[in-house]
Amino acid sequence: MGNSINYSYEKLNKFCTDAFMKFGFSKEESDIIVDVLLTSDLYGIESHGMQRLVRYHKGIEKGLIKPKAEPEIVFETPVSAVIEGNDGMGQLLGYKAMNIAIEKAKKTGMAIVTVRNSNHYGIAGYYAKMACKEGLIGMSMTNSEAIMVPTFGRKAMLGSNPIAIAMPAEPYDFFFDASTTVVTRGKLEIYNKLQKPLPEGWALGATGKGSSDASDVLKNIVAKAGGGIVPLGGETEQNGSHKGYGYGMFCEIFTSILSMGLTSNHTHIDGKGGTCHGFIAINPAVFGDADAIREHLSTLLQELRESPKAEGAERIYTHGEKEVYAYEDRLKNGIDVNINTVAEMVDLCNYLQMDVKEYLGEEAMELKLRQSSYDM
Amino acid sequence: MGNSINYSYEKLNKFCTDAFMKFGFSKEESDIIVDVLLTSDLYGIESHGMQRLVRYHKGIEKGLIKPKAEPEIVFETPVSAVIEGNDGMGQLLGYKAMNIAIEKAKKTGMAIVTVRNSNHYGIAGYYAKMACKEGLIGMSMTNSEAIMVPTFGRKAMLGSNPIAIAMPAEPYDFFFDASTTVVTRGKLEIYNKLQKPLPEGWALGATGKGSSDASDVLKNIVAKAGGGIVPLGGETEQNGSHKGYGYGMFCEIFTSILSMGLTSNHTHIDGKGGTCHGFIAINPAVFGDADAIREHLSTLLQELRESPKAEGAERIYTHGEKEVYAYEDRLKNGIDVNINTVAEMVDLCNYLQMDVKEYLGEEAMELKLRQSSYDM
Repeated sequence: MGNSINYSYEKLNKFCTDAFMKFGFSKEESDIIVDVLLTSDLYGIESHGMQRLVRYHKGIEKGLIKPKAEPEIVFETPVSAVIEGNDGMGQLLGYKAMNIAIEKAKKTGMAIVTVRNSNHYGIAGYYAKMACKEGLIGMSMTNSEAIMVPTFGRKAMLGSNPIAIAMPAEPYDFFFDASTTVVTRGKLEIYNKLQKPLPEGWALGATGKGSSDASDVLKNIVAKAGGGIVPLGGETEQNGSHKGYGYGMFCEIFTSILSMGLTSNHTHIDGKGGTCHGFIAINPAVFGDADAIREHLSTLLQELRESPKAEGAERIYTHGEKEVYAYEDRLKNGIDVNINTVAEMVDLCNYLQMDVKEYLGEEAMELKLRQSSYDM
Repeated sequence: MGNSINYSYEKLNKFCTDAFMKFGFSKEESDIIVDVLLTSDLYGIESHGMQRLVRYHKGIEKGLIKPKAEPEIVFETPVSAVIEGNDGMGQLLGYKAMNIAIEKAKKTGMAIVTVRNSNHYGIAGYYAKMACKEGLIGMSMTNSEAIMVPTFGRKAMLGSNPIAIAMPAEPYDFFFDASTTVVTRGKLEIYNKLQKPLPEGWALGATGKGSSDASDVLKNIVAKAGGGIVPLGGETEQNGSHKGYGYGMFCEIFTSILSMGLTSNHTHIDGKGGTCHGFIAINPAVFGDADAIREHLSTLLQELRESPKAEGAERIYTHGEKEVYAYEDRLKNGIDVNINTVAEMVDLCNYLQMDVKEYLGEEAMELKLRQSSYDM
C-alpha cells in the first residue's frame, strides 16, 4: 500500500454526506458542507478538505459547533447584514451569508455581510466563487485562532486571516485565495513530518526570534507559549512584514470588527470558538457593460500569461488557473487521499456504524491505525 | 550647508500654492494639490511630496497633465460612478472621486468610484483618510507605470499598485498605505545613491534573475529592458510572491478594470499617461452602532500595541501611528527638504519668475545647481 488511496469524487461525496447526516445535519445541509470540503480537495488544497472531517466531528462533540444552531440576522440594510452565527457550522453560515450578499448586490450593486460566532468555514475562496458564478465580483475573508505574530512582536495576535477574491474572466476566472501570513500552519506541519528545517522568514520561536524548528514552533503555537508564523513579507520591515500585517488587519476589519465579534486574539480561548467571516459581492454592471469589463480583465490575464518568462521558468500563471487544472484532473482521475486521513475515515466509519467496506473499499479495511483519533 | 534645508509648513505651502497657480491651476485647485503633496511630506513620505513638484511641471509641459481638463462622469448609479479623467491632474481627480464616493456612501451605506485617464495622484492614503475623517472606512488604490514583474516572469506588467485603507479609531485611526511590490522604486533609488547592494528578494535583472545591482535595475526599468521589482512576498512562491502579485491584481481590478481604463502594462507608453484610480467608502453604521464599532477596533489596536515584544524590539506599531508622530513633529519643527529638491525649487522659481529669496530664503540662493532640471 502506498501513501494514499485513490477515490472517485462520487465515492468521497457519498461517504462525507452520509457522515455529516450522522453528525446531525439534514441532507441539504450536508450537501452544502461536503461541497465546500470536496471543492477544496478538487482544487488540490488538501489541508482544508476531507482531512478536516474528524476535526469537525470533534468540534461538534465538544459543543464548539452546534449542528442545530439557528443563525439570526441582527442588523440589516439594503447593502449590508450582520449575522449572529450562534456557534453554527462555518460552511452553512458562509453559504447563507454569501447568498444574502449576492441577492443584495443584484438589487443594489454591492453588499457586505459579516458573520460572528461561527466556526472554521473551509476555504475562503469557495464563497468568493459563489458570487463569481453569478457574474459578480466576490470576496470572502475569515479570522481564525491567532497564529500571526505582528511585526516586532512575539505573541500571535491575528489569525492566518485569508482574503479571497474572484471575478469572472475567460477562459479562467480570476481567483485569488491566500492567507495573509507568509505560509499557513499546514506548511509547517508538512516540514515537521519531513523533519526539514523551515526556510528563513517563515516562523518565530517563543522569544520572537526567527526559528527553523518546525516541531518547536508548532508545539509553542498549541501551548500558546509565544512565537508563531510571520506576516506575508517576513520577519522585518525590510521585505514588507508590516504589509502582510496590514492585510491581516484588513481581514480583521471585514470580519470581527464589522460584526462586533471576537477578534482573532480572543477566539478559541477557554472553550470558546467565535470565528468571524466577511463576504462582499459587487456587480460589475454598476460600472458599465459587464461583458466588456469581463473581456477587459480576460485580456490583462492573457497578457500576463503570455508575457516573457524568467530564465528557467516555463510559464506564468494567473490566479485561479492552477485550480481549474487540478479540478478537472481530479474529477476525472479521482482524489488521492493520504492514508493517515483514510485511517481516520475508517475509524469514523466504525464510530458512526457505517460499513467500512461499502464506503471506503477493501483496501481501507486493511489499514492498521497507528492511533485511533477516537482514543484521543 | 548640510544635506537639507528646514522650512516651515507655511513657507512650503505658500511656495507650492503659488507655483501651481503659475502652472495654470486656480487657487482652489492649487490648495487641493498642495494639501495632498505636503500631507505626504508631513507623514514623512518624501518620495510622494514636494520632491515631485518638478515632475508634475514637466508632465504639464509635455501635455501628459492637462490643467484645464474637465472630468466627466461616464457611468453612475447610487453606489458607483466611473469618471473619465481626460488627462487631468491626479490629485484633483482623486479628490473629486473620493468626495463622490463619500457622498454616495453617506446615503446608501457604501460606494465605489473609479477613474481612468488620470495622472500620478500622490499618496494613495490621502484619499482613504478623506473618508476616515467623515467617519467612514476609506479605501484608495491606483495603478501606475508597470514596474512589478509577475511571479516567474521577467517583464514588468503591473504597477507598484498601492492599496490604502483607513478606518476611524482612537487615539490613532487605522491607516495602512502600501505598494503591493516588496518595495517602491524610491527605495531602489536610495540604495543607488548610497551605492549599496540591494537586499535579496527585491529586484530582478533583465533576464528575470534576482539582482542586487540598483543602478542596473533602474536603468532597465527606464529602458523597459526587462526586470523590475518583485511582488510583496519576493521572487518565488516559497515566501508568497504569488500573494503580492495577487494584491497587485486586486488593485488593478478596482482601478483599470472597473473603469475600462488602461491596465498598468499599457500606461505610460508612446506618450500616453492613462493612470487609473479606485475609491471605496463604507459607512460602519450599516453594520450597527458606529461608535461601538470604532471602540471595538480601537481595543484591538491597543491590544496589538501592548502585546509582548520580540527580544530586542522596543515597541509594536499599529498602522497609522508613525504618521501621526511624524505629522505632529514636522508641523511643529518644520520639514527638512533635501538640497537636491531645493535646487530644483530654486530653478523652478527662476523659471516661473518667482522671487527666490522671498519664497525659499537666502540659504537657497547660494545653492549651486549641479544640473538645472530645466536644461534637460
